[in-house]
Amino acid sequence: MADAVMFERALIVGVGLIGSSLARAMRERKLARAIVGADADAGVLRRAAALGIIDEAASLKGGAKGADLIIVATPVGAVAQVFGDLAVAADEGALVIDVGSVKGAVVDAAKACGERIHVVPCHPVAGTEQSGPEAGFASLFEGRWSILTPLSREDAGYKGAVEKAAALWRAVGSKVEIMDAEHHDLALAVTSHLPHLIAFTLVGAADDVQAVAEAEVVKYSAGGFRDFTRIAASDPVMWRDVFLNNKEAVLEVLGRFTEELALVQRAIRWSDEATLEKVFKRGRELRRAIVEAGQETAAPNFGRDKR
Amino acid sequence: MADAVMFERALIVGVGLIGSSLARAMRERKLARAIVGADADAGVLRRAAALGIIDEAASLKGGAKGADLIIVATPVGAVAQVFGDLAVAADEGALVIDVGSVKGAVVDAAKACGERIHVVPCHPVAGTEQSGPEAGFASLFEGRWSILTPLSREDAGYKGAVEKAAALWRAVGSKVEIMDAEHHDLALAVTSHLPHLIAFTLVGAADDVQAVAEAEVVKYSAGGFRDFTRIAASDPVMWRDVFLNNKEAVLEVLGRFTEELALVQRAIRWSDEATLEKVFKRGRELRRAIVEAGQETAAPNFGRDKR
Repeated sequence: MADAVMFERALIVGVGLIGSSLARAMRERKLARAIVGADADAGVLRRAAALGIIDEAASLKGGAKGADLIIVATPVGAVAQVFGDLAVAADEGALVIDVGSVKGAVVDAAKACGERIHVVPCHPVAGTEQSGPEAGFASLFEGRWSILTPLSREDAGYKGAVEKAAALWRAVGSKVEIMDAEHHDLALAVTSHLPHLIAFTLVGAADDVQAVAEAEVVKYSAGGFRDFTRIAASDPVMWRDVFLNNKEAVLEVLGRFTEELALVQRAIRWSDEATLEKVFKRGRELRRAIVEAGQETAAPNFGRDKR
Repeated sequence: MADAVMFERALIVGVGLIGSSLARAMRERKLARAIVGADADAGVLRRAAALGIIDEAASLKGGAKGADLIIVATPVGAVAQVFGDLAVAADEGALVIDVGSVKGAVVDAAKACGERIHVVPCHPVAGTEQSGPEAGFASLFEGRWSILTPLSREDAGYKGAVEKAAALWRAVGSKVEIMDAEHHDLALAVTSHLPHLIAFTLVGAADDVQAVAEAEVVKYSAGGFRDFTRIAASDPVMWRDVFLNNKEAVLEVLGRFTEELALVQRAIRWSDEATLEKVFKRGRELRRAIVEAGQETAAPNFGRDKR
């Protein structure tokens, strides 16, 4: 882990969970001489400053002046607008990264910026169900994968910027993967977007069964329901933007899911034991692989129960 | 918590996760003078004895002789057969409880036993994704709800048995609720059976997206997918039996879920921001209620990440 100054002045646009975690991780490792924050929500910006996460609160344009690193950590729906402002306001050659969960739309927005700034689309596959600067923590990215989907630019300045972005993620403890945006959006539709969609929907549907009161859903949630509520408690605006900006891949994997669900439904209706067992057996193997890869705890119930 | 001997001889039929946890909890609190184990799997029974969870390994019939408490902790599909054997082999007036996740089918099986033994169908809403005697632990039931769905018998012997069953669950740390089996099966279809079905199906469907390798599913699982793998790693045979024995309620709540899913799918396709935000906002509120009810940890990511 490189503990040396990599940047003179880092501007973080959006000091929520991810932005403030990155600020904390960079501060802890002294990766930037100054960390400046900007946020569309003045209250959030004030809180981030009060927490000592940023050295200075600024406007987007004021903060961009002199910044050699700009981290756009807004919901995906706001990225194109912010990039447009930065294309004008940022210093020539500044490295601009985002942290959005969708990359196709971000690549399109980055292309529209021209080549005066170096935009490297990034996605750290990390997070919690909480939001805001108070929710961030420095170790959020440790052991997690950060995916970069660089533009197809061949100039040395840009190639250096991609390397610098990768080095930043490694410096905060991430492993780095590079792929094209289209593949990213499909892979993350499977591992992140569809699970969120299903969790949001399941939690919503629990309200619909009239004969079962919400109080009962709460009381008996340890039967499995509570697991879904963690990601269903994630930021609604962030997730709205993810689905609107990754429509095609999400609808594609949702189609596969509903096919599988129809199969399982039919197996229940017709008491097809073999099909049910076959589907149900895949879970243990995949979970074991995820635990072995260091992406999940081996403790039963996520280790949340007292033993 | 009553720390007094409640039973002379307790037989536990099926010393897996739930059976062995109950054995440990009863032993810790000295609730029975002797704890006897029986299991269809001789290896499991040997391991339970070696772990010191049971005082004695026995056959179902041998173990039942002299037992004033018999706990049937097998998969739901095996309960009717075990009850049938116990109707003959158990001492007159013995209290027989089960721990199955479905209660309608268990009540039917209990009715078929006649009134010589006192069968009180029970469901402790607690568990982990692990199986076997090694996976059990004494505090599993603490703070969780145990639901009793007694038969409609008016004799004093049976009423006393229901009270004794409730006292046992309270003694191991549970809260107790009494309801009819039909309502139980619908409420648990919502809070437990449907979540498991969806998790099993989602994990299965991840294999189906050809363009995304399993290695990628593993690497990027921290984006949300890993949450589903916990309950998808649950015992396949136990869950096969749950779905086959609670068909009607599961298909009913699954229907509600797929309706909601169609609504969300349509909202994505047509970029209906308001509907998405409305559905997504319900999660936080419900999770907060579950945390406040002591059924879930408040720690982000279930507290599983290092901070």
